[in-house]
Amino acid sequence: METDWPLEQLRAYRPHLLEPAGLDGFWAETLAPQRARGPHATYELVDAGLVAVETHAVELAGHDDHPVHAWLHLPPAPLRGPGPLPGVVQYQGYNGGRGLPHEHVLWALAGYAHLVVDTRGQGSGWSVGATGDPAGAGAAQPGFLTRGIEDPRGYYYRRAYADAVAALDVLRAHPLVDPDRVVVAGASQGGALATAVAALAPGSVAAALVDVPFLADVRRAVAVAQTDPYLELVRYLGAHRDRVETAFATLAHVDGAVLARRATAPALFSVALRDRTCPPSTVFAAFHAWAGPAEIEVYPFNDHEGGGPHHVRRQVAWLRSTLGARLEQ
Amino acid sequence: METDWPLEQLRAYRPHLLEPAGLDGFWAETLAPQRARGPHATYELVDAGLVAVETHAVELAGHDDHPVHAWLHLPPAPLRGPGPLPGVVQYQGYNGGRGLPHEHVLWALAGYAHLVVDTRGQGSGWSVGATGDPAGAGAAQPGFLTRGIEDPRGYYYRRAYADAVAALDVLRAHPLVDPDRVVVAGASQGGALATAVAALAPGSVAAALVDVPFLADVRRAVAVAQTDPYLELVRYLGAHRDRVETAFATLAHVDGAVLARRATAPALFSVALRDRTCPPSTVFAAFHAWAGPAEIEVYPFNDHEGGGPHHVRRQVAWLRSTLGARLEQ
Amino acid sequence: METDWPLEQLRAYRPHLLEPAGLDGFWAETLAPQRARGPHATYELVDAGLVAVETHAVELAGHDDHPVHAWLHLPPAPLRGPGPLPGVVQYQGYNGGRGLPHEHVLWALAGYAHLVVDTRGQGSGWSVGATGDPAGAGAAQPGFLTRGIEDPRGYYYRRAYADAVAALDVLRAHPLVDPDRVVVAGASQGGALATAVAALAPGSVAAALVDVPFLADVRRAVAVAQTDPYLELVRYLGAHRDRVETAFATLAHVDGAVLARRATAPALFSVALRDRTCPPSTVFAAFHAWAGPAEIEVYPFNDHEGGGPHHVRRQVAWLRSTLGARLEQ
Amino acid sequence: METDWPLEQLRAYRPHLLEPAGLDGFWAETLAPQRARGPHATYELVDAGLVAVETHAVELAGHDDHPVHAWLHLPPAPLRGPGPLPGVVQYQGYNGGRGLPHEHVLWALAGYAHLVVDTRGQGSGWSVGATGDPAGAGAAQPGFLTRGIEDPRGYYYRRAYADAVAALDVLRAHPLVDPDRVVVAGASQGGALATAVAALAPGSVAAALVDVPFLADVRRAVAVAQTDPYLELVRYLGAHRDRVETAFATLAHVDGAVLARRATAPALFSVALRDRTCPPSTVFAAFHAWAGPAEIEVYPFNDHEGGGPHHVRRQVAWLRSTLGARLEQ
Amino acid sequence: METDWPLEQLRAYRPHLLEPAGLDGFWAETLAPQRARGPHATYELVDAGLVAVETHAVELAGHDDHPVHAWLHLPPAPLRGPGPLPGVVQYQGYNGGRGLPHEHVLWALAGYAHLVVDTRGQGSGWSVGATGDPAGAGAAQPGFLTRGIEDPRGYYYRRAYADAVAALDVLRAHPLVDPDRVVVAGASQGGALATAVAALAPGSVAAALVDVPFLADVRRAVAVAQTDPYLELVRYLGAHRDRVETAFATLAHVDGAVLARRATAPALFSVALRDRTCPPSTVFAAFHAWAGPAEIEVYPFNDHEGGGPHHVRRQVAWLRSTLGARLEQ
Amino acid sequence: METDWPLEQLRAYRPHLLEPAGLDGFWAETLAPQRARGPHATYELVDAGLVAVETHAVELAGHDDHPVHAWLHLPPAPLRGPGPLPGVVQYQGYNGGRGLPHEHVLWALAGYAHLVVDTRGQGSGWSVGATGDPAGAGAAQPGFLTRGIEDPRGYYYRRAYADAVAALDVLRAHPLVDPDRVVVAGASQGGALATAVAALAPGSVAAALVDVPFLADVRRAVAVAQTDPYLELVRYLGAHRDRVETAFATLAHVDGAVLARRATAPALFSVALRDRTCPPSTVFAAFHAWAGPAEIEVYPFNDHEGGGPHHVRRQVAWLRSTLGARLEQ
Repeated sequence: METDWPLEQLRAYRPHLLEPAGLDGFWAETLAPQRARGPHATYELVDAGLVAVETHAVELAGHDDHPVHAWLHLPPAPLRGPGPLPGVVQYQGYNGGRGLPHEHVLWALAGYAHLVVDTRGQGSGWSVGATGDPAGAGAAQPGFLTRGIEDPRGYYYRRAYADAVAALDVLRAHPLVDPDRVVVAGASQGGALATAVAALAPGSVAAALVDVPFLADVRRAVAVAQTDPYLELVRYLGAHRDRVETAFATLAHVDGAVLARRATAPALFSVALRDRTCPPSTVFAAFHAWAGPAEIEVYPFNDHEGGGPHHVRRQVAWLRSTLGARLEQ
Repeated sequence: METDWPLEQLRAYRPHLLEPAGLDGFWAETLAPQRARGPHATYELVDAGLVAVETHAVELAGHDDHPVHAWLHLPPAPLRGPGPLPGVVQYQGYNGGRGLPHEHVLWALAGYAHLVVDTRGQGSGWSVGATGDPAGAGAAQPGFLTRGIEDPRGYYYRRAYADAVAALDVLRAHPLVDPDRVVVAGASQGGALATAVAALAPGSVAAALVDVPFLADVRRAVAVAQTDPYLELVRYLGAHRDRVETAFATLAHVDGAVLARRATAPALFSVALRDRTCPPSTVFAAFHAWAGPAEIEVYPFNDHEGGGPHHVRRQVAWLRSTLGARLEQ
Repeated sequence: METDWPLEQLRAYRPHLLEPAGLDGFWAETLAPQRARGPHATYELVDAGLVAVETHAVELAGHDDHPVHAWLHLPPAPLRGPGPLPGVVQYQGYNGGRGLPHEHVLWALAGYAHLVVDTRGQGSGWSVGATGDPAGAGAAQPGFLTRGIEDPRGYYYRRAYADAVAALDVLRAHPLVDPDRVVVAGASQGGALATAVAALAPGSVAAALVDVPFLADVRRAVAVAQTDPYLELVRYLGAHRDRVETAFATLAHVDGAVLARRATAPALFSVALRDRTCPPSTVFAAFHAWAGPAEIEVYPFNDHEGGGPHHVRRQVAWLRSTLGARLEQ
Repeated sequence: METDWPLEQLRAYRPHLLEPAGLDGFWAETLAPQRARGPHATYELVDAGLVAVETHAVELAGHDDHPVHAWLHLPPAPLRGPGPLPGVVQYQGYNGGRGLPHEHVLWALAGYAHLVVDTRGQGSGWSVGATGDPAGAGAAQPGFLTRGIEDPRGYYYRRAYADAVAALDVLRAHPLVDPDRVVVAGASQGGALATAVAALAPGSVAAALVDVPFLADVRRAVAVAQTDPYLELVRYLGAHRDRVETAFATLAHVDGAVLARRATAPALFSVALRDRTCPPSTVFAAFHAWAGPAEIEVYPFNDHEGGGPHHVRRQVAWLRSTLGARLEQ
Repeated sequence: METDWPLEQLRAYRPHLLEPAGLDGFWAETLAPQRARGPHATYELVDAGLVAVETHAVELAGHDDHPVHAWLHLPPAPLRGPGPLPGVVQYQGYNGGRGLPHEHVLWALAGYAHLVVDTRGQGSGWSVGATGDPAGAGAAQPGFLTRGIEDPRGYYYRRAYADAVAALDVLRAHPLVDPDRVVVAGASQGGALATAVAALAPGSVAAALVDVPFLADVRRAVAVAQTDPYLELVRYLGAHRDRVETAFATLAHVDGAVLARRATAPALFSVALRDRTCPPSTVFAAFHAWAGPAEIEVYPFNDHEGGGPHHVRRQVAWLRSTLGARLEQ
Repeated sequence: METDWPLEQLRAYRPHLLEPAGLDGFWAETLAPQRARGPHATYELVDAGLVAVETHAVELAGHDDHPVHAWLHLPPAPLRGPGPLPGVVQYQGYNGGRGLPHEHVLWALAGYAHLVVDTRGQGSGWSVGATGDPAGAGAAQPGFLTRGIEDPRGYYYRRAYADAVAALDVLRAHPLVDPDRVVVAGASQGGALATAVAALAPGSVAAALVDVPFLADVRRAVAVAQTDPYLELVRYLGAHRDRVETAFATLAHVDGAVLARRATAPALFSVALRDRTCPPSTVFAAFHAWAGPAEIEVYPFNDHEGGGPHHVRRQVAWLRSTLGARLEQ
């Protein structure tokens, strides 16, 4: 059955979420060191046995100079035209990673420089990763959502968001890439990361593809969600009954429905009305907060898999048209 | 936990399965019309928005001239060398279909002519299909496993196996393809179809990739399996308590552990020790019955997803080496 | 817990469902051939080992002259009075069949000519059937709900409804039966079939017993239902994301909450407030749309089993009184 | 999957179960008062709205003269022949009762005097009952299996078995019934009750129908069973870790695989190889212990529903032949 | 997810529950014999191997003089001051018991005379008990909630509530205890018992600790609850479809949201917003009905475990302050 | 049902587990810094509102001088005798912590100095903790079992075991404690920690209480276990299919069935035959490997809760006797 309000009610939902004091300063301070340093990455060509994709192993410098691993997939040279390539930075869903070199190559097939980035500490789930998280944490629930949640500065997603900005900066600095046509993309946690990057580096993002995003309107999300990862927070607060306000104060710094007010790039969202993981109302909360032009595709019969290949087809066309318009400007 | 015997016992398992009388005649008669007619297909170029794959919509003539839909994915012309291409016919898992044009393109990326074939009547599950099954059936359990099971001649998988042979013949007849280097491949039901084709058209198959195959050693399978589709048969026989022997007599005509004795091409199998859908012992039964040279990769910690991307990497290398050896012959 | 709105809200629910254009023509055209041909059936006495019921195996001509199997149970001759018997045509729940001869005999015990009819292709579930469906279908979800759903003319339930009308006509034409006192009855899918017959042959139905009916107000049903068979449609549309409107356009032709507007016979409904399979609101939608006099019995503590034996007792009394009133007219 | 050993191992299983000291004395003493008193019952004709069954409400004197309710269903007078009727006493599965008058009438339809007996305290499950249990108990697990288990004399099943013997005696004393052709029958708990009666009143039972019986070889049963009611005992002993031997000492007095050694009537058993409630090995333990001639029907694809209507058909034929042979003696 | 209405709606919920006629007379008559007799108990010192708690086994006379078992835990003599001790009577959750002597000693550690009382017939679940229920019952659902529900006078909870009052009277009469500072406490069913005692003996209770109470606003509870024990009632009424009003008439005599109107002692409640067993709205119904001063602690992220150790800490402080205030009066 | 082999087979199970090369050196090197430094802790008296327990908040120096939090519960001064106290160090089950001060005080009530120690990074589950893990890790499965598993030196349990040894050393150095009568105790993960400490500091441990221990015979454990935490490893290896041998090489350094060969103190084990979390065979593997005198208590009807309060009672008596014997030496 549907997991949230009826569609008409979702379309009208615009919660009044308070911003934590000093939010912009918090992020400016977080990103200052890596912005001062500039993007940094090494590339190594790998043989994945494919003739139609050219793949480079990337190690880039993330938050605190921690190494973050990625793949850069490119259309092979005979298929590349004369000008620079548009790019897509793809962020991963919860507990996934960049995978093996042959796994996530769609945007390279479509003609983009395609950077598939690890999320630190993750990558033992649906897709493997190679990037650790060198930072420790206080007593936390198994998983990533409550690591360091007692304080925004030590919170896991502060580091993860900063890594994501670093990945964008790396792709924009690649010699084959047109820095004015780089897109951020991701589903679920990947959608949260794409939202964060679009909000924290609004001038650097040409467009955003945000699918069934996690980490938006978190107070409502935990009241409605039926599965992990939001339930990690429920279990944490069910144990640490005296830390509710502390935890939500930290979460407000990373909430996509707050940050999206700073995201000015054009965006294509998707939402699924039977999503038990990222409740539809919280997706609409982020969508309605988005500062730039935004469209949303509704999938009434899907759970968290969302629009699947049908939405990819929609994204390929939307991106072609959106970036084409940008070229013409 | 593991779902079947310990590995050493699996490695020793070689059941004595009886062949139904007239098995070869049954299949010869089944395939005679389409062999007399020869392969037939139409091709139409489609735009999936990809630059690194060239895709054609295929409608081929299957059993009884019923139309079967497929995609033919090719490396784009600039990436194709001078000689003919090796080919892969990929069969689908239960209730999947050829998908959208951009979905299943791996073997094209690896340099093969890649035919992704529908299974008739299926394609409303993990991947969509476009091919109906114009034949009706007696009272059957929802699903495909018991449709027409009261008689081998009207049984669903007779038609499905014949379609699979027709698809192989179509790819071998394509002008860009080297008919001596065409591979059959599939996982789960796709593994059953690949096994069947390798057994029913042994001279036409250069190699076989058989992953966690369905429809092997079915009597044991239903005693051990924990999920659909084998449980469709359990529910059917739990209702029709008087049709047990009739059903197994039909199933013996399509059992991969029987048919594999006719399969002479080199094969790479995979098996997962926590597979609740296609029990490991039944995979070993088919593997041990295989007439040609065969290897098996064991994944001890996986359920029916099996080797996943790690096994694809293994397959890419194994195929390169196996077909390369064939070229040198 | 309860699975739908509170009772007072259910009692007020009267959705405005649009009728598809040409609905009456669609059904007139569907039924024209069998009406032109007239009812046709063969009877064979069977020995079920019972002394208090006389059972005949029936093969009747359904839609497109396809054979449909049934049992005709009669009170044994010594118990039959001088006049013709009232009759009950009983339709089956999803995936059930007429069963074995001794299974479904209640209405014969109560003094009726009791026709227990198969549903084509079904009968491998809670009760066995003997009737196949000779028609094929496009790619569909396992089950019956989405077979041929791409077009009303090829849709499975078009054939099933037409068979149900044919069964009514057969019983009314039986020499022992009073054609003016024949009742249609069924639960779940059987309730949908009884509704359809009462709507499509309103002059031929003396009364209707409609329990927890399936296939009513289908758009709401799929938003609320928690189990199969409605979830078959959810899975189908979750895969075929681009066929939502096509599917609902077809379903509108068989929706009981639309068709009931044509049903003029007296009816006794039942509904269960914890029904996870056929949501109570959708039962009320059909009940409120019923054109004839109708009563509804509410079972607040039952799931899809509904009123069970208590409701049967209610039905026996209601039918005695309703048909008695008819006799007196 | 199958829930116990493979069939060949089941067929060889004959556990050496110890009899508690004084078992026969225990039961003789238990039954002495009711045997001294003789059978006692009152009958009241009821109108269930059926013409083909004649039903009487029965209140009979059970253990300690506690009232036990039942229905006596008879073929209606016009269908009764000149001689006395054979009879069937049907005992109920766990938490069922005699139901409503129209529910359980099969054996009356087949020509038997059919006594459908309540089990004291039960009858709020799949079929309703009207009989309380006036005796209290010590701290027990919800359910009936552990009520009074601390001592055989206060144990629930001592009273239930004694009631069951009383019901047999009542039917044998009915003026329409031939006392030499009365059968005991039941499934699950009903099978345990039928076994107990056949063992405790061996001279009074003409045949026994024992389906998927409960309460046999209980030590093994609790090691293997996956559902209630056996899990009631597991939970009880999981809480009262110091009462294991006490509990099993009591259970030995009612274990069907012990008592069956005293049952000399011909018996027809059934067993289901996917039975998660009454494990197949424990059914075979009782079957192998049966002192009289016994046959067993194996249903490999069924859970606790066992042979269902197919087995009823088998029973009708078997009983006709078995009692017919008895008539000829 | 949350299991009931949003918090603001819960805070406003004050259902208009009808009192059964003669409620006060019913309870006065129930308690008259034990009040006439006065409290009666025997004590026996036990060695639980602990040096910091002194434990006595208690057998007290409950309803109808039935024996009820308990432990009396005391601070050891060197830790007891000169004056009498305040006391806590702790009632148990469903199917628990007093446990082993070392298990439930918290209030003795905190300086109270701590009486841990069995609930008759229970104690085979999370904590063992030693007290039987000598009274029998009519056909009932396994469990305690429907035992004797056909009539308030034979209903199980009539006896259980009367036992609970007897336990309070016993502790108040103990020579080491100050009868004016005795508290009733309990969670879930224990909360229902504490509520009942506070309502039926309002002058004898100094304060009440009521956590996530069971048996309040039962009509709403069964519409919302997702687990046993409320589902016992649902299953009972799902079987006995004709006893709905009878059952609720009985339940009205023990409903905490009715009885609380008579409870005048200060109370500290707790409620959990994800409680699937005792729905939050029903806890608020009892809380809002409480006649004395009452506070409630809300745990938004907990299921039926409620506030757990955090709430115990809160209770220790609240009780110290509440009874301290009483001392000063 | 039982979750592992029958009891007689368990009693015979003695697997031949290989020790990793350099195991003793690995641990000597690990513990060298903290042994060189000596035990270090600070104590602060806390008011938990209890009169019968005296509690101190402890912060002790663990591995790498990381702070580890604990409670020291003591019998209050009036209850302490003249000599030093025996002690118990209690380690926690997976994801638990020291809890609130009033929660885990049993051994203090029994007369012991009772140190309840956090496990680093844990304490958001059944009992809260206050100790973080300042060390980071590579990509890992949510949870603790796979953190840093790619290398024994960075593995999470290396740090956790070293902390556990530090806690023992701290309690032995406390001025009120007799260092020759300090016991290690724990269930599940706590049992693994107690085993490790008994093995790594054999001269410092007077006795060990090891209940249903985790982390023993891990290869078999993952083949049989049905729940987390062992399934964390299964999911990790299901994703990282190429790291199986690396992971098991690390795990061999912390496997209790290997380390127990070094444990010489008397031990009391417990095992539960329906334990789905820590399979019985793996408990027996550790028990059989134990170098000192050891007894085991078998609970046939319990899952991972094991012997519960009954076993605590057994432990209190066993410890009194075991340490008493030690005093007499």
